[in-house]
Amino acid sequence: MRIIVQKFGGTSVATQDKRLLAIEHIKDAVKDGYHVVVVVSAMGRKGDPYATDTLLGLLDSAEHCAKREKDLLMSCGEIISAVVFSSLLTEKGYDNCVLTGAQAGILTNDDHSNAQIITVTPDRILKELEEGKVVIVAGFQGAAGNGDITTLGRGGSDTTATALGVALNAEVVDIFTDVDGIMTADPRIVDDAKKLRTVTYAEICNLAYSGAKVIHPRSVEIAMQKNIPVRVRSTMSKDPGTLIISQAENDRMEPRSFKDQVLTGITQTANITQLKVDCAPTGGNQLKVFKAMADNQISVDFISVTPTGVAFTVSNEDVEKAVGVLLDLGFQPEVLSNCAKVSAVGAGIAGVPGVMATILEALTAEGIEVLQSADSHTTIWCLVREEDMVKAVRALHRKFKLHA
Amino acid sequence: MRIIVQKFGGTSVATQDKRLLAIEHIKDAVKDGYHVVVVVSAMGRKGDPYATDTLLGLLDSAEHCAKREKDLLMSCGEIISAVVFSSLLTEKGYDNCVLTGAQAGILTNDDHSNAQIITVTPDRILKELEEGKVVIVAGFQGAAGNGDITTLGRGGSDTTATALGVALNAEVVDIFTDVDGIMTADPRIVDDAKKLRTVTYAEICNLAYSGAKVIHPRSVEIAMQKNIPVRVRSTMSKDPGTLIISQAENDRMEPRSFKDQVLTGITQTANITQLKVDCAPTGGNQLKVFKAMADNQISVDFISVTPTGVAFTVSNEDVEKAVGVLLDLGFQPEVLSNCAKVSAVGAGIAGVPGVMATILEALTAEGIEVLQSADSHTTIWCLVREEDMVKAVRALHRKFKLHA
Repeated sequence: MRIIVQKFGGTSVATQDKRLLAIEHIKDAVKDGYHVVVVVSAMGRKGDPYATDTLLGLLDSAEHCAKREKDLLMSCGEIISAVVFSSLLTEKGYDNCVLTGAQAGILTNDDHSNAQIITVTPDRILKELEEGKVVIVAGFQGAAGNGDITTLGRGGSDTTATALGVALNAEVVDIFTDVDGIMTADPRIVDDAKKLRTVTYAEICNLAYSGAKVIHPRSVEIAMQKNIPVRVRSTMSKDPGTLIISQAENDRMEPRSFKDQVLTGITQTANITQLKVDCAPTGGNQLKVFKAMADNQISVDFISVTPTGVAFTVSNEDVEKAVGVLLDLGFQPEVLSNCAKVSAVGAGIAGVPGVMATILEALTAEGIEVLQSADSHTTIWCLVREEDMVKAVRALHRKFKLHA
Repeated sequence: MRIIVQKFGGTSVATQDKRLLAIEHIKDAVKDGYHVVVVVSAMGRKGDPYATDTLLGLLDSAEHCAKREKDLLMSCGEIISAVVFSSLLTEKGYDNCVLTGAQAGILTNDDHSNAQIITVTPDRILKELEEGKVVIVAGFQGAAGNGDITTLGRGGSDTTATALGVALNAEVVDIFTDVDGIMTADPRIVDDAKKLRTVTYAEICNLAYSGAKVIHPRSVEIAMQKNIPVRVRSTMSKDPGTLIISQAENDRMEPRSFKDQVLTGITQTANITQLKVDCAPTGGNQLKVFKAMADNQISVDFISVTPTGVAFTVSNEDVEKAVGVLLDLGFQPEVLSNCAKVSAVGAGIAGVPGVMATILEALTAEGIEVLQSADSHTTIWCLVREEDMVKAVRALHRKFKLHA
């Protein structure tokens, strides 16, 4: 059985017009001989009566609602959306049925509001597919072992889609959204940013974590486990979007050399502040700093430890709290506000020497100072002043010929 | 464990003010030493965003929505209501949890939109009660053997409440609504109509079927199986309302003789039309008439069969269709429009001679013609002209001293 999973996000199912566009994609898949599993999010965004945030807004005192009960409430958003979608699909002549996350066999742990999928037992889905039905699964939800309804956290419908893709050994998982695919850079910053035909699982994870909020990294990690291809596509067009695949498959489809494309994309995150603390590691001082940040739920990034001190970044919102914590510890931090992180992502980085040199060359030529840097297998991060951020993204995009 | 089930209908949970009133009753029950199971309906009535009818209104083409999927959609109304209620109850300091019908152990057949409860396995409820929690159950729903969500039809939350009452061997089931209890007659018609302190299961069924829409007969029949007392009460007051109990219990609490009170209440239903057809039973003619009505989904009442013809009533809306059917069969029906049914209900009727005579005496004294009559163990029905209806109800109420 050739199976495709098609996930439609909140904006793709918000109105009747949008749902009709979504159904066109289902029709195409059926025509292509696929058995289709549809995953839907709740309808619309904040303000719409059946969107997740609106349902939570019904609670006069959200802080008094237990996480378990909140999950139950939120799960209704996707169920309502799925039934409305089902009704329209029936009208268009497609036999279908709706399954809740629990009915679809999605077993999770009981970490309410952020549950992890333990297993997917897709017997019911397979039975319905065999009967020729399109199966619509309410996204973002599952059930714990005791039957309690759980939700999978933000981006949860993406996770539902790829987890079902893995369990059903789907040929492909389509993530329909309101953009055409993954871009080499934010098109609002880089005029000639280009849609990527393919990216690897590792690259998309770094692109997503770094600010390109198109698909949830967690869902990609699940697809990666079984090499299930994922496509990020627009509901509004027939364009195949961006295909997310393994490194090996990508190398086969798109052989590349240092000369043409070592980088895949550039992303940026603003509103960052750098903190520096003069302190030797004696007496566990450096350890104390990071332990205090963790104890106060302050996320830190760009951690740099030297024999004379530590440096790290926090988001602008956390600065006041972080400085307070440091002062309480008896430290006098040096604060550099209004920084930004520029990320150069590319699976090619690892094997290619001189990428960092090229990055520095591009930035220096524009008079941009790199305040700090970090790197991983597939990504190089540079901390720059926020006023330099746009210039830096454009310079790297141009230098690495990502428009080409 | 002393258990009470308290059911709050749509209007009783529609607003924060109403929910606060409802919680007062839960507080009282806890103070009285009860473990409390709360059953809630969806919030509000048609027009409210999370009421059952509004959820169904989301479907652009309700006729294309399968019954199974409609049930899934409707079940969200009670779940949303239950979680909103839970949040407020937590704020007021009462540890609680929400269970869907399925989680509460309500197993039904798969007759979607009108499912019958097969069994209730209240293990989870008992576990939560033992932990000291108030258990809030989403009314109106259950699950079929395959895990599909079902709904119990109109009045379904009452059914949930009494079915849980039976399964938990509750001391009492409270049905909270917006009236003070069951009245001897409609107070809009009879000025001195009186709230009944008690009625029997059999009486309330006839009162309910006859037009006093306070509690669903099906739910009473369930309570009756195990003699679980049911109270119909107002959310807005501390009044104990009307207690619905067995005949034996009622006789013990309220011994009565013919002289004081043979009747319990008078109800009325307007908008009825009487049809008479001249036809001998030869050739299956009389049978044909009733079969044709059934085939056309026309409900008939007041059936009277004689050697020369048949008479029966239909609701005014069905008259045109019924007459058409009869003409098609070659009959020329005699049509008497604008009739009304007046029902005299009382468990005492069966054993007491002369009740019908007293009724006729009362009506004749007012110049009211009885067009037809019928009777059962606990009820006598009279068909009168609609213009006589109010006068008839008042006359019977007075004659049988129901105000006393």
